[in-house]
Amino acid sequence: MERIKGGVTAAKGFQAAAAAAHIKYADRTDMAMIYSEKPCKTAGTFTSNIVKAAPVTWDRAVVESGVKSQAVIVNSGIANACTGAEGGRICQETAGKAAEVLGIDEAGVLIGSTGVIGMQIPMERVKAGIEKLAADLGGDLEHGSRAAKAIMTTDTREKEAAVQIEIGGKTVTIGGMAKGSGMIHPNMCTMLAFITTDAVISKKALKKALSRDVEDTYNMISVDGDTSTNDTLLLLANGMAKNEKIRCNTPEYDRFAEALHVVNETLAKKIAGDGEGATALFEAKVTGASTKEQAKVLAKSIVCSNLTKAAVAGHDANWGRILCAMGYSGAEFDPEKADLYLESRAGKIQLVRDGSAVAYSEEKATQILSEPEVTAIADIKEGTEQASAWGCDLTHGYIDINADYRS
Amino acid sequence: MERIKGGVTAAKGFQAAAAAAHIKYADRTDMAMIYSEKPCKTAGTFTSNIVKAAPVTWDRAVVESGVKSQAVIVNSGIANACTGAEGGRICQETAGKAAEVLGIDEAGVLIGSTGVIGMQIPMERVKAGIEKLAADLGGDLEHGSRAAKAIMTTDTREKEAAVQIEIGGKTVTIGGMAKGSGMIHPNMCTMLAFITTDAVISKKALKKALSRDVEDTYNMISVDGDTSTNDTLLLLANGMAKNEKIRCNTPEYDRFAEALHVVNETLAKKIAGDGEGATALFEAKVTGASTKEQAKVLAKSIVCSNLTKAAVAGHDANWGRILCAMGYSGAEFDPEKADLYLESRAGKIQLVRDGSAVAYSEEKATQILSEPEVTAIADIKEGTEQASAWGCDLTHGYIDINADYRS
Repeated sequence: MERIKGGVTAAKGFQAAAAAAHIKYADRTDMAMIYSEKPCKTAGTFTSNIVKAAPVTWDRAVVESGVKSQAVIVNSGIANACTGAEGGRICQETAGKAAEVLGIDEAGVLIGSTGVIGMQIPMERVKAGIEKLAADLGGDLEHGSRAAKAIMTTDTREKEAAVQIEIGGKTVTIGGMAKGSGMIHPNMCTMLAFITTDAVISKKALKKALSRDVEDTYNMISVDGDTSTNDTLLLLANGMAKNEKIRCNTPEYDRFAEALHVVNETLAKKIAGDGEGATALFEAKVTGASTKEQAKVLAKSIVCSNLTKAAVAGHDANWGRILCAMGYSGAEFDPEKADLYLESRAGKIQLVRDGSAVAYSEEKATQILSEPEVTAIADIKEGTEQASAWGCDLTHGYIDINADYRS
Repeated sequence: MERIKGGVTAAKGFQAAAAAAHIKYADRTDMAMIYSEKPCKTAGTFTSNIVKAAPVTWDRAVVESGVKSQAVIVNSGIANACTGAEGGRICQETAGKAAEVLGIDEAGVLIGSTGVIGMQIPMERVKAGIEKLAADLGGDLEHGSRAAKAIMTTDTREKEAAVQIEIGGKTVTIGGMAKGSGMIHPNMCTMLAFITTDAVISKKALKKALSRDVEDTYNMISVDGDTSTNDTLLLLANGMAKNEKIRCNTPEYDRFAEALHVVNETLAKKIAGDGEGATALFEAKVTGASTKEQAKVLAKSIVCSNLTKAAVAGHDANWGRILCAMGYSGAEFDPEKADLYLESRAGKIQLVRDGSAVAYSEEKATQILSEPEVTAIADIKEGTEQASAWGCDLTHGYIDINADYRS
């Protein structure tokens, strides 16, 4: 497997575009399009929130219908959530307009929206935006990056990832883009992430690879504990790599799944590290667990704790908060056996042995915590399973962004 | 029932004291004592966190032993959590010293600690503090207030409440004190709260009244979603009101329980409103629910949402975040039927009808949200049950306090 540059246009036959449609933002691109030269098998996972945005309902129906999809239309600024019947009509009209402009089947148009909840999307601007998008389409990496930029809300940087593997002598590429960066606590998948691949793969294998990997990637990140109304992850496969078809329970499937995992984990970590107001990516790794589930519950509880996140922001090795967060996670473990470590590019130190403090240098701890990527490791010394979760620090920036987000 | 001034010394026969023992703070009182002239029947509820502070383990053993208790020794600054066997020895020595100085049974000394996790308490300072406390004891309201002040950590004001009822011609008093104000997301009871009463009451009735009421009061508040290692709620009854004994399933029990509820709810709301960095008490009231449990889950999800709390801080009527938080709460409801209102001393307005926005004045909404006590009301129009939860806004102050709490 090789990591390569690019995002949704890295795989063969995929094009992307960005446009300024002025849906809510005045001075930036706010619509993106992904277009595949050939119709795609599609898998998707969506928010578990009972309050589902209209595009979530739309996309789920498309994915479940089994119709091949050929385009994704995304807007930032307005989420099209809590918009009643009008929200559904907007999806219908968006798909219709895209189908008309691109000359494709309306039933295969997917939609993503992100932004403020409760406002209606101005349809005329979307229609004009779709025309601009169609005119802007291109298959190079730059077009992929521009699309990744257009779907941002409070994100500070675009998020892309791509890898290549060989399947039976053919090069298969998987690339993707995602956006955060608040209301991030996915429970099925993340806010918005779009993955494209040119692999030839059975629909069953595509769906299996995606739904399994979500559990270890997007579902293991949290920015603020708020599970969004719009969480959507789509994986489109257009088969243009011409490899022998990948089927479940084969070595080729395993390699495809592993490559997909790298793209998903990279995007998930980029979302966590660019959480609203974040200055650091904060990873919690729990080792020595009896079961993977136990390790996951403990790791996620650590990265979700406001107190732990504020301590990371302050570069303060306040390890009691980490143990406390593990304690209320709901997972059983023996705190009297737990060891804790901090690690980053600046080094690694042990803070706790068997549940109590060991002597360590506060200065060194602060150095470690001052890096842009920080890991807390909890070894509960019960078994051999482990898991990681990713979050970010909690800073003044988060408050600034969210105390007045709508204005 | 009459609300009266005072706290733990409001009921007959209870004395309190405060002292500066310099356990961690240099320039303030940091130890408190509650002393009853007569031994007390005692009920208690404690943190559900697996990581339990030494005093929690100690108090639970005292309460479960059935021994009557006569004194509570509390320190602020160090939590005596994650302190291993040494933490238990400190409880033993604290109880021993208090018993010696007060001339009471060591087995009836209760202990509370709050502050930094993982540090050991300097025992010599505690011993000197207990001597000062014993010398300072007094039964007036001022002594109660001084004790309430001494147990504060990041709290900005002391928290007391007291009420009186008549039972068979005798005046029965219930009073209490509590402290917050971070790591507040009680799951059995709150950080530290101590309630005293002179009621004559059966141990069974005392326990029942406390454990039921906890569910509707302390367990319905959240400052930051972090369930502490030290949560402790104790209720001491010394019987000095000389009323006929209160037993379960009697009108007298109901009146006692109702009075206890007022004290508990008052203290719980004071903890929420004085959450770290808070500028407002934020209440979420869910009405029209099918079951009380459903209403509670929805209400608590609203006050726990970082995004909702940041919107309250910004006086921004970002109602989509409220519906979103209800949607991921885990409780079922139909978002398309929900109505939302905002209410405070400045008035009441409707924001949402049947899941979609109604026209409302943003200026009026901001006025309502600028008050020190703000209520969001969600009517899900299914039934007749309702519940409230209490939290606070999320501000820069929370970050300031928690990014560098230990220094």
